[in-house]
Amino acid sequence: MRISELSESTGVSVATIKYYVREGLLSPGRKLAERLADYDDQHVRRLRLLRVLRDVGAVPVGALKALVEATQDRRTTIHDMFGEACDALRVETAVPATPDEHTRELADRIVERAGWDQVRPDAPERDQLAAIIRVILDSGLRTDPEGAATYLPLVDAIAAYEIDQVDDSQDRETMMEQMVLGQVVLGEFLLSLRRLAHEHHSALRFDGRG
Amino acid sequence: MRISELSESTGVSVATIKYYVREGLLSPGRKLAERLADYDDQHVRRLRLLRVLRDVGAVPVGALKALVEATQDRRTTIHDMFGEACDALRVETAVPATPDEHTRELADRIVERAGWDQVRPDAPERDQLAAIIRVILDSGLRTDPEGAATYLPLVDAIAAYEIDQVDDSQDRETMMEQMVLGQVVLGEFLLSLRRLAHEHHSALRFDGRG
Repeated sequence: MRISELSESTGVSVATIKYYVREGLLSPGRKLAERLADYDDQHVRRLRLLRVLRDVGAVPVGALKALVEATQDRRTTIHDMFGEACDALRVETAVPATPDEHTRELADRIVERAGWDQVRPDAPERDQLAAIIRVILDSGLRTDPEGAATYLPLVDAIAAYEIDQVDDSQDRETMMEQMVLGQVVLGEFLLSLRRLAHEHHSALRFDGRG
Repeated sequence: MRISELSESTGVSVATIKYYVREGLLSPGRKLAERLADYDDQHVRRLRLLRVLRDVGAVPVGALKALVEATQDRRTTIHDMFGEACDALRVETAVPATPDEHTRELADRIVERAGWDQVRPDAPERDQLAAIIRVILDSGLRTDPEGAATYLPLVDAIAAYEIDQVDDSQDRETMMEQMVLGQVVLGEFLLSLRRLAHEHHSALRFDGRG
């Protein structure tokens, strides 16, 4: 299809498509003539992925590049590829607290207690968790991050379900897409459900109280 | 305390403090002289809240104002106040899909199935959920939003626990602070735990597979 049709069927502007090609996020179309290229379903799929990540996840172009590179490095295992994708996405959740030794220890203890022994000892997400724990401790919230025991089995069940949804009969790139989409889109789904549940439980506890 | 001390103990710059006072987000200090005002612990607490919301939740000034107004409207119940706070925070999770009748019906059915009968029929979060469902349906993910049955009891348990953490021996403003902080900060905590759990379960399922 022409670039104008590609634009129409994905909702991504022609200018943005050209930009993604220049940045290496999208392979060029098959050249038909000097100013005419042909695009196929692969391009449609990639553009839809990029669009969701940009719109829903607010993932910037730098992180999109890291994601695409992770997919294309054929030496890595699916799991390593996904790990790199998570690291690329992670920079976006900017929790601007500096993790210290104490909160990092707490973070490691939580991961251990959850039984997540496959998490890399140097996974950047451990520092991210430590930074969030720092914010919780400084915020005056009553929640004790060490008492996260309530969360762990619930989060574990959610994550196991989500990873289980990935269709492993698909090719590597499709699996990667599904995992990244799941990370971003199902994360928003989860937070939306949680806000609705907050409204419900807050009504049960506080309704009518001035 | 002087404005410089207030700035030091909260990590918010003097210029930002003055801006918050002008915008009505922070009450002015008690005037001691023409250019000298006295600030107290109430100011420290409010500034810490504003800082976390701005830094962790990336909540813009407009939404912060709506939040502060909700706290100060003494006619509303705690629950209504919290509902308004959620509505104010919600605008920030920009899921740019237009909910249609079909996805809105799916959203309502999910809320019903979860048993969240206290959620207002016109709660804006229902449209937000519908918009996210639209993104999921368009994304090619295998996850069936109607099959969200897996999520519902888990999210319900998380939200009930979080609302339960609010200390109701405190004054209205403190309770509000705790609920808003919980919504934002514990949301990040949850997503961070989920990313760690993804890494673990992805390793269990895919490690070593090319």
